[in-house]
Amino acid sequence: MSAHRARLTISTRSRTTTVDVTSGVREAVRASGVADGICVVSTRHTTTGVFLNENADPAVQRDLLSHLDALVPRSGAFQHAEGNADAHIKSVLVGSSVTLPVQDGDIDLGTWQGVYLAEFDGPRERHLIVTVVGS
Amino acid sequence: MSAHRARLTISTRSRTTTVDVTSGVREAVRASGVADGICVVSTRHTTTGVFLNENADPAVQRDLLSHLDALVPRSGAFQHAEGNADAHIKSVLVGSSVTLPVQDGDIDLGTWQGVYLAEFDGPRERHLIVTVVGS
Amino acid sequence: MSAHRARLTISTRSRTTTVDVTSGVREAVRASGVADGICVVSTRHTTTGVFLNENADPAVQRDLLSHLDALVPRSGAFQHAEGNADAHIKSVLVGSSVTLPVQDGDIDLGTWQGVYLAEFDGPRERHLIVTVVGS
Repeated sequence: MSAHRARLTISTRSRTTTVDVTSGVREAVRASGVADGICVVSTRHTTTGVFLNENADPAVQRDLLSHLDALVPRSGAFQHAEGNADAHIKSVLVGSSVTLPVQDGDIDLGTWQGVYLAEFDGPRERHLIVTVVGS
Repeated sequence: MSAHRARLTISTRSRTTTVDVTSGVREAVRASGVADGICVVSTRHTTTGVFLNENADPAVQRDLLSHLDALVPRSGAFQHAEGNADAHIKSVLVGSSVTLPVQDGDIDLGTWQGVYLAEFDGPRERHLIVTVVGS
Repeated sequence: MSAHRARLTISTRSRTTTVDVTSGVREAVRASGVADGICVVSTRHTTTGVFLNENADPAVQRDLLSHLDALVPRSGAFQHAEGNADAHIKSVLVGSSVTLPVQDGDIDLGTWQGVYLAEFDGPRERHLIVTVVGS
């Protein structure tokens, strides 16, 4: 059993958006040579999140982002002076990583699941770390 | 060190509910033979979540579900046409997996902690994957 | 490859607060002797959370706590009779653990990332479990 590591670079194109990173995660797992174990996809930023959700109807992603904006409006009464306090809070609500089962050399997702980067303070170049542990 | 895997099947009985799956997770960990390591409990669906919280007073679960309904009402102005956009958003807020320490062949939970499946678009048959990594 | 385990004890000083536990997590990882793998930081309580976010401007933490209070007010119409239903709900939204990459014997965080305990029903003595899996 061993640990393998890869980095994904994603250029986001607007202030808030989601980016499907499933294929990059799959590639990293295949390249690791790990057949059975787990895979952790982690963001290294404090105004982004990582999550799993539906990859079929793009409206799901738009609904998610607009509802998060309603729950945590950018114009809220925040003390943090950089104008992105909402992005930090959304990042905590969404979470900083996902952990996936690895089976037969591939991530084991449900039919409708994709792995997404959530950008809350873009556009920027962002980095995810994919760590694969197994044998 | 090795990786083991089990599947739990849960039939949920209403549109939104939580189901205590702690005993099934414990069984999977015992069956794995892993004494020390970690255990990941993952949902394969995009309208459910997995979380840890109090297993003593059932009112905690009801309060959680009703407050999530208040934060993300089913009747919100969503683009996703299947009538379950709220369920997708709640799933992202709750999260798709929990990762637990395994010690002496059992999951190490606090006194009041239970492992729960959160159903947001039931009733349905749901599947969780339990992956145990350790030695 | 092996699994190592440490416990952190934190005394929180108010009902809701966040505590930077990054240095304790780093120490636990160094003491484990694991060079490459992953590290899971888990709470054993149902009214606390664990999360990653900015460790530079303390206003980010204050904005997070006050916005969570706005989303889940303590005075909400809850059934749970202990007066801390809000704390249980906030704990589920924030999450009960974080999983971090371990590289070269240290946790691999982004420049601005710190590991935080979120206290929602203090002041109390709290315990976190740090599990390190790797080689």
